[in-house]
Amino acid sequence: MNENIRIAIAGHGNLGRGVEAAIGNNPDMRLVGVYSRRAPDQIKPRHAETPVYAMEQLPEDTDKIDVLILCGGSKEDLPRQGPELAALFNTVDSFDTHARIPEYFAEVDPVARANNRTALVATGWDPGLFSLNRALGEALLPDGATYTFWGDGLSQGHSDALRRVAGVAGAVQYTRPAQEAISQVLAGERPELTAQKMHKRECFVVLEDGADAEEVRTAIVTMPHYFDGYDTTVNFISAEELARDHQAMVHGGFVIRSGNTSPDTTQVMEYGLKLGSNPEFTASVLVACARAVHRMNALGQVGAKTIYDVPLGLLSRRSPEELRAQLL
Amino acid sequence: MNENIRIAIAGHGNLGRGVEAAIGNNPDMRLVGVYSRRAPDQIKPRHAETPVYAMEQLPEDTDKIDVLILCGGSKEDLPRQGPELAALFNTVDSFDTHARIPEYFAEVDPVARANNRTALVATGWDPGLFSLNRALGEALLPDGATYTFWGDGLSQGHSDALRRVAGVAGAVQYTRPAQEAISQVLAGERPELTAQKMHKRECFVVLEDGADAEEVRTAIVTMPHYFDGYDTTVNFISAEELARDHQAMVHGGFVIRSGNTSPDTTQVMEYGLKLGSNPEFTASVLVACARAVHRMNALGQVGAKTIYDVPLGLLSRRSPEELRAQLL
Repeated sequence: MNENIRIAIAGHGNLGRGVEAAIGNNPDMRLVGVYSRRAPDQIKPRHAETPVYAMEQLPEDTDKIDVLILCGGSKEDLPRQGPELAALFNTVDSFDTHARIPEYFAEVDPVARANNRTALVATGWDPGLFSLNRALGEALLPDGATYTFWGDGLSQGHSDALRRVAGVAGAVQYTRPAQEAISQVLAGERPELTAQKMHKRECFVVLEDGADAEEVRTAIVTMPHYFDGYDTTVNFISAEELARDHQAMVHGGFVIRSGNTSPDTTQVMEYGLKLGSNPEFTASVLVACARAVHRMNALGQVGAKTIYDVPLGLLSRRSPEELRAQLL
Repeated sequence: MNENIRIAIAGHGNLGRGVEAAIGNNPDMRLVGVYSRRAPDQIKPRHAETPVYAMEQLPEDTDKIDVLILCGGSKEDLPRQGPELAALFNTVDSFDTHARIPEYFAEVDPVARANNRTALVATGWDPGLFSLNRALGEALLPDGATYTFWGDGLSQGHSDALRRVAGVAGAVQYTRPAQEAISQVLAGERPELTAQKMHKRECFVVLEDGADAEEVRTAIVTMPHYFDGYDTTVNFISAEELARDHQAMVHGGFVIRSGNTSPDTTQVMEYGLKLGSNPEFTASVLVACARAVHRMNALGQVGAKTIYDVPLGLLSRRSPEELRAQLL
């Protein structure tokens, strides 16, 4: 199928750049351009040939775009852009403030519906692929327990917290799943686990000149909410090492469901991701979801949707016949 | 949602018994009964209170059954029963002869469509959950490679082959994924792998009185198609050990996709199952799929379907609102 789906990107941070890369891997798609709030001449797209436009241009380009991928942040950008742009375009976004998804969905749904648009909200890997596996686990093994582990992953929020500690010149934090906890879960033991027991925190810190390493370490490991109660390791490194070894936005994790189908029979389902780049992978999910959104809109399925509403065959470039013959 | 979906089972082997167990874990479902070709008084259902009927009774019970789960075999039963029963009922089946799925789908589809029935064919874990993950892997990481490993699993076909070797009184065979191959794949190396390099075969054999162990071992490891070319281990055990330690129908496996989102960035997706009972887990998938079929039929989505056509939220007992608020 050569559908030549016309995709545009709203917002050009790491995620938008990932979408640029992902479209290059999907020959049935064409990138119309990047739309940004910054002045177009300040945007350096990943590929020099990618057109860059001002965000204000978008309402004039509704005929040129099949699906608009919203690459703004969940805190400031999407709550405003999501409903606004779902009036004009089919959209896909990675809204990821889990607690506010119902509210966001309720804002987008009536607008998209009234304008015959399809808006797939809160997709990516979590929310997204992990959400699918949490629902599948529960539906297939009702007598069971679900565990979501994150990592190994670079956590932006925890890295920011480290940088606010007095004496810290630079830092990154990796969240790592605790192997003992994973082993217990995979063995079907259904342990009671807190986030603290499921994850370890590993910090790589560059000290400011004259800072006391032990003071900094203590300030970190006792920091409430972020590190207190976790198994936290603090490694001191040079600014060169930080720049050289800790730039990749690695991430990943596991969703594990263990349950019983009869009293003596344990079953375990496991879904895992090991991501060399969190924004590039999220972008790849958004782009495949854009294909599904394009098709769902053509089928008259309008309004806000989540990954739970998408028949997954629609994400594939293959036709239903090919899927049945070659991948089923 | 208390939909009280009325489920019936056609065919009462291991899979049908698994469906009996699974329905007990789903309070929104009720088991109407087991329909069998054998005389009803010869059927011992898992639960004494499960009603048993003759298969010929089915056409009279169309008003009593929302979804009929077909638990017959793919070789003899389903090619005949699938199209026949899709004229009378919404159905779910685990037709698993991969190469013949298109043909089977083409037989069922027009009948179901003409009778406003929904028939979900070829579901379970492979085909089924593994198929979903093969399609997802390819759609999300188009520049990549997919690997399906099976095991640790008891293989019925290979166990049968062992039992046909002269001098063998009883035997089972386990297929085990080769750990070296899994490690290469998880590292994102995209190795070229044959089925032989991906799996090992471990046999547990009871010798007949007077049989020569070395002759039996040689006959096994050189058996074309089944064992030749594989890393095969043969363990000789007593009839007591065979009966005591090797009755569980364990199975499982992995679908792994590794790919690149940009030249230097590797991403790995992994889906794994570790099943204490293959038929009980397959049955659990069929039962959750029956819920989706019931809902799809109510939505007017008739004809033959595969797991690629099912929005996965429909498998859950939760409402769309609950899914968004609690699992997304």
